[in-house]
Amino acid sequence: MNTTEILHRIHDELRPIIGQGRVASYIPELAKVPADRFGMAVVGIDGSVVAVGDADIPFSIQSISKVFTLVMALQLEGDALWERVGREPSGTAFNSLVQLEAESGKPRNPFINPGALVCTDILCRRFAVPENAVVEFLRPLSGNPSVQYNRAVAASERRTSSRNAAMAHLMKAFGNLHNPVDEVLDAYCRHCAIEMTCVELARTVTFLAHGGIHPTSGQRVLDASLAKRLNALMLTCGTYDAAGDFAFRVGLPAKSGVGGGIVAVMPGECGVCVWSPALEPSGNSLAGSMALERFTTLTGRSIF
Amino acid sequence: MNTTEILHRIHDELRPIIGQGRVASYIPELAKVPADRFGMAVVGIDGSVVAVGDADIPFSIQSISKVFTLVMALQLEGDALWERVGREPSGTAFNSLVQLEAESGKPRNPFINPGALVCTDILCRRFAVPENAVVEFLRPLSGNPSVQYNRAVAASERRTSSRNAAMAHLMKAFGNLHNPVDEVLDAYCRHCAIEMTCVELARTVTFLAHGGIHPTSGQRVLDASLAKRLNALMLTCGTYDAAGDFAFRVGLPAKSGVGGGIVAVMPGECGVCVWSPALEPSGNSLAGSMALERFTTLTGRSIF
Amino acid sequence: MNTTEILHRIHDELRPIIGQGRVASYIPELAKVPADRFGMAVVGIDGSVVAVGDADIPFSIQSISKVFTLVMALQLEGDALWERVGREPSGTAFNSLVQLEAESGKPRNPFINPGALVCTDILCRRFAVPENAVVEFLRPLSGNPSVQYNRAVAASERRTSSRNAAMAHLMKAFGNLHNPVDEVLDAYCRHCAIEMTCVELARTVTFLAHGGIHPTSGQRVLDASLAKRLNALMLTCGTYDAAGDFAFRVGLPAKSGVGGGIVAVMPGECGVCVWSPALEPSGNSLAGSMALERFTTLTGRSIF
Amino acid sequence: MNTTEILHRIHDELRPIIGQGRVASYIPELAKVPADRFGMAVVGIDGSVVAVGDADIPFSIQSISKVFTLVMALQLEGDALWERVGREPSGTAFNSLVQLEAESGKPRNPFINPGALVCTDILCRRFAVPENAVVEFLRPLSGNPSVQYNRAVAASERRTSSRNAAMAHLMKAFGNLHNPVDEVLDAYCRHCAIEMTCVELARTVTFLAHGGIHPTSGQRVLDASLAKRLNALMLTCGTYDAAGDFAFRVGLPAKSGVGGGIVAVMPGECGVCVWSPALEPSGNSLAGSMALERFTTLTGRSIF
Repeated sequence: MNTTEILHRIHDELRPIIGQGRVASYIPELAKVPADRFGMAVVGIDGSVVAVGDADIPFSIQSISKVFTLVMALQLEGDALWERVGREPSGTAFNSLVQLEAESGKPRNPFINPGALVCTDILCRRFAVPENAVVEFLRPLSGNPSVQYNRAVAASERRTSSRNAAMAHLMKAFGNLHNPVDEVLDAYCRHCAIEMTCVELARTVTFLAHGGIHPTSGQRVLDASLAKRLNALMLTCGTYDAAGDFAFRVGLPAKSGVGGGIVAVMPGECGVCVWSPALEPSGNSLAGSMALERFTTLTGRSIF
Repeated sequence: MNTTEILHRIHDELRPIIGQGRVASYIPELAKVPADRFGMAVVGIDGSVVAVGDADIPFSIQSISKVFTLVMALQLEGDALWERVGREPSGTAFNSLVQLEAESGKPRNPFINPGALVCTDILCRRFAVPENAVVEFLRPLSGNPSVQYNRAVAASERRTSSRNAAMAHLMKAFGNLHNPVDEVLDAYCRHCAIEMTCVELARTVTFLAHGGIHPTSGQRVLDASLAKRLNALMLTCGTYDAAGDFAFRVGLPAKSGVGGGIVAVMPGECGVCVWSPALEPSGNSLAGSMALERFTTLTGRSIF
Repeated sequence: MNTTEILHRIHDELRPIIGQGRVASYIPELAKVPADRFGMAVVGIDGSVVAVGDADIPFSIQSISKVFTLVMALQLEGDALWERVGREPSGTAFNSLVQLEAESGKPRNPFINPGALVCTDILCRRFAVPENAVVEFLRPLSGNPSVQYNRAVAASERRTSSRNAAMAHLMKAFGNLHNPVDEVLDAYCRHCAIEMTCVELARTVTFLAHGGIHPTSGQRVLDASLAKRLNALMLTCGTYDAAGDFAFRVGLPAKSGVGGGIVAVMPGECGVCVWSPALEPSGNSLAGSMALERFTTLTGRSIF
Repeated sequence: MNTTEILHRIHDELRPIIGQGRVASYIPELAKVPADRFGMAVVGIDGSVVAVGDADIPFSIQSISKVFTLVMALQLEGDALWERVGREPSGTAFNSLVQLEAESGKPRNPFINPGALVCTDILCRRFAVPENAVVEFLRPLSGNPSVQYNRAVAASERRTSSRNAAMAHLMKAFGNLHNPVDEVLDAYCRHCAIEMTCVELARTVTFLAHGGIHPTSGQRVLDASLAKRLNALMLTCGTYDAAGDFAFRVGLPAKSGVGGGIVAVMPGECGVCVWSPALEPSGNSLAGSMALERFTTLTGRSIF
C-alpha cells in the first residue's frame, strides 16, 4: 500500500469509533466543535502532501502550540532554558500543582502547562506581543500566510484559567516567572487558541523530520542536534500522562492538544497530523491515537 | 505565686533566649521589627489585667486575625461554613498546595491560609469593605477604639503574596472562592496587618474563656457551644504544623502569628497573649511558646 | 440529671442508630461481632461505676491498645521516645505510607499504626514476650486479673497485615525498627487482640484523669506532667483522621479502635468507655462518637 | 571513523572522568568494585564484535536484569501482564512507595523495583527456581554457557532489601503479589546478582535490534511488534528518574543498573553495552552515560 491507500484504509477502519470519547468541555468555546470530525495529513520532506477527511478544516491547536513556544524559547535562550524547565516526564496529571510545589517551581518539562508558561514568559520578555510573534513564526512554515488565533476561544479559555493562574502565581512565588502573571496568561491562552489545519500542521513540523531545516522554505529552524532532542522530548513527554503508553503503541515523537489534534514526526521522512475532537480520558484524541497506531503498523515504520 | 509574680518570673527566666530564632523576613515591613521585644498579658474574665514587658506596644497580629475572621464568618454562615472549610489538622506546612489540590479545593481548617481566604471570601460578600468590618468588630472587644491595620505592612504583604494568590486561584478553579481573587487578597492582607497590643489581644479573646460572652462589654459573640468548639479548633489547628507539639507542651487552645504574637485561652479563667518576634522554624514565636509552657507549668493549670 | 440518668438517656436516644455504619471487615474474626451491640461505662476517680447496655461484654480493644503500649514505652524510654516518634496529627489515613516515606521513617505520632509498631519494637527489646507484659500491665488497672488476648483474632489479624508489614519494613529501611519485623508484627497483632469490657477500660484509664496515679490501686503509672501530655496527644491524634472533628464535637481526649470501642478521659473526674461495633468511614464507632458527643452536651462538661 | 575507532576515541576522551561519581554503596558487596573500570562493546546484528577496555570482565548486572525478567514474563503472560504493571514513566525515585500506594499497588512500569517484583512473581508461579530459569534464558543469548549469579552479592542484597520488602508487602496488601514475599525477594535479589560482561550483554540484546529474533542463535525471543514496544519502554522508563534527560542526550532505548552497566539498542544495527561502576546521582553510570552520548554523536545515529 502507498501512503494514500494507507490513510484511506485508516479512515475506513476508524469510522465506527470516530466520535467516541468526549470533546473537551472545560473551555466552553471548544465544546461547540462537532465530535465526529476526522482528518489526517502526511507531508513528506520532499513536500508531497497526502490527506483524508477533514484535513483542511482549521481547528484549535491548543497544547500543540507548546512545541512552537518551546522552539522559539530555545532560539532565544538556548541551553539556559533548562535551568528553568526540566526534561523529565511528569508522572502526574498535566495540570498538577503537587510536583511544581515539591520541585521548587521548576516544571518537569516544557509540554505540561507550567512548562509552557515559562516558555511564554521568555517570549513575553522579548516580544511586545508574543502571540503575534508565534503566529508570524508559523505562517511561512505552515504555508498559510493568514494563520491566526481565535479571539473568542482565547477569551473563553482565559476566563476558565484559574488553575493555570494558580500555577503561574506559584512559579512567581519561587522566582521562576518574570513578567506579570496576567500578561503571561493572556499570551498563553492566545497561543492555545491558534487555529490550523492538519495539512498545515503536518507541513510545519517537517523541520523536525529533516534535521531542523524546514524542507519547503529551506529555513533552518533549529540545529540538527537540537531537532533530534526535541523529538526525544516529544516522545517522552508529548502526550500528557499517557506518553509511555503512546510510545509503546505508536512509537513516534508526537504532541497532542485537547482540541483533538496530534502532530507526529517520522524522522527522515515526514510530518504527520491527525485531528478528531473526541478525547480519551488522558486528554489525547481517541480516534487520533488509534489512527497513528494503525499508521505505524501499516507502514511497518516507527523509530524503534 | 500570684499571676503577677508568675509573669515576672517567666520574663526573668526567658531573658537569655529572647531574640533567639528568626524574625519573619518574607514580608519586608515585618523584618524591621526588633528581635528582642517581649511582652505578655493575662486578662481575667473578671476584667483584671496583669502584664509584663512590652505588653502595651502594638504589633502586627498576622495569623491571629484568622480567629477573628473565623468568628465573623461563623456569625454569618453558621454550620454551613463547614461545607467549605474542614476542621482537621493539616499535617503539612500551612501554605502547602498539595493538600488543597488533593482535597478538591476544600482547606483542611480555617487557620491555614486557604481556610482564612475562604472566611475572608465570606466577609467580602457581606461587607463592602471587610477590613473595616473586622476592625470595628475588634474595637469594643479590645477596649481600644482606634484599632487599625498598618497600610505599609498590608501593601508589603500584598506584593509578596504569590503563594496566597496561587492558593486562591486554585480554590477558584474548584469553585470554592466566589469573589474576585484580587479583592479577597486585598482584604486578607489588611486583616493580617492589623496592629494590637498584648493587653488588647488578651482582653479580646476573653469571650472564648467565658462561654462566648465578652465579659467586659457583656456582648455575646458566639453561643456557648460554639465558643467551646472554637477552643477545640485552636488546640488542634492553631499553631501551624506544630499544633500537636504545642498541645503536648502547653496544653491550652492558642493561635499564633508570624508577627510573633500568640493568643491563648484558659477556659473559665482568662485570655492570655504573649509577643516576641523571633520565631521557631515552625513559625511560632520561640520565646512566646516557652513563656506559655512555663505559664501552664507554674500555674499548674491546663485543660488536661 | 445524674450520671446514671444521663447514660440511660443516651442509650435511649441512640437506639435508632445503633447498628448503623459498618463493622470492620478486613479482619475476618472481627466481622463476626454483632453490629447492634452498645455499652457505655463511666468510672469516677472515686471508684464509682455507672454502666449501661453491654458494658460487661468483652470486645477486641484493637487500637485502644496503642495507649497502653505508648505508656509502657514511655516508662522505658522517657523523652528519648520522641526521637523515634513524632507528636503531630497525621493529616492522612492512619495506615498511609506516604508520610512515613516523606519523613524518613519517623511516624507522625504513636497512635497511628507505624507509631505503635515503634512502641512495640521498644517493648520487644525489653520483654521476651511483650504481649504478656502488656496483659500483666492491664490486669491490676482494669480490676480483671484474667485479661487476655484472643488467639484467633490475633492470628486472623496477622494473616491480613501486609500493609503493616510494608510499614515495618520501610521503617527498618530507615533504621527505625530494631527487632526482626516478624517478631514486632506478632506482638503488635496480639496487643490489638486483647479483649476487655467497657467497665474495665474506663477503670484502666482513670489514671489519666487523676494526674498519672491509678485511683483504685494507688499505683503511679506516669508522672503528673506526662499524664497531662498524654491526654493532649489523645485529643490531637487519638481518633484517626477525624481527630479535629472529634475534638470539635466531643471535646475530650479519646482513643478509638476498629473493634468499636472508644475510651475518653475527663480530667479530674472520670474515665469513660463506650462500645458499639458499627463504624463511621473514619474508623471510629458511629454510635460511640455520638454517645460521647451527647455525654459532654448533657453533662455540660468538656475540657474547653 | 569506523566503530573500532569510535570506541577507542570514546575511551580516550573519557579517561579523565572515569572513576568520578560514586560506586553504589548500599549493597556492601558492590561497594568493593574498583571505581576506575571502564568497558564498552558493540555487537552488530551480523555478529560482529567491537570492544574496548574492560569489556570482558564480568560485573553485576543489577537492574539490567529487569529487561530479561520482563521478556520472560511477557513470554508467559502476554498482554495480560499490563493489568498488573503500567507502561508509564514514574516521575519519582525508582524505589518510591508513594506512587505505588496512590495507584493501588500497580507499579508504574516494569523497570522500577516494584514492577520487576511483579515480573518475578510471575516467574515464581511458573518456575520452581526462577533464578535458574533466568540464567538458562541468558546463556544461549549471551554466548556464555556458564552465566551465573553471584551468591555473595545476592545474599548481601537480600540483607539490605527492607525497602523492597516494604513494596512487596504493600503490593500484597493490594492483591498484586501472589507468591510469598520472601520467595519473590529471594529470586529478585538473585536476578540482580547475575554477572555478565559487556560483550555478553551487548550480544544478548541484539534481538531487540533485530525484530525480536536473536541473530546469532536464530531464536525468536519476542515477536517483532513486541520487540519494538520493549524498545519504546526502555526509552521512556529505562534509566531511572533520568529517562527524559537520557533520551534527550543519547536518543537510544537503554537500561541501566547500579552495578554501573548500561545496555542500549540501535534498531536495525546493533546492541551496545558500556560499564563503569561510578554513578551519577540518578543511579546511572556517569562515564557510561557520557560514552553513549558520545557514541550517538560520533556515529551521527540515534532513533530520532
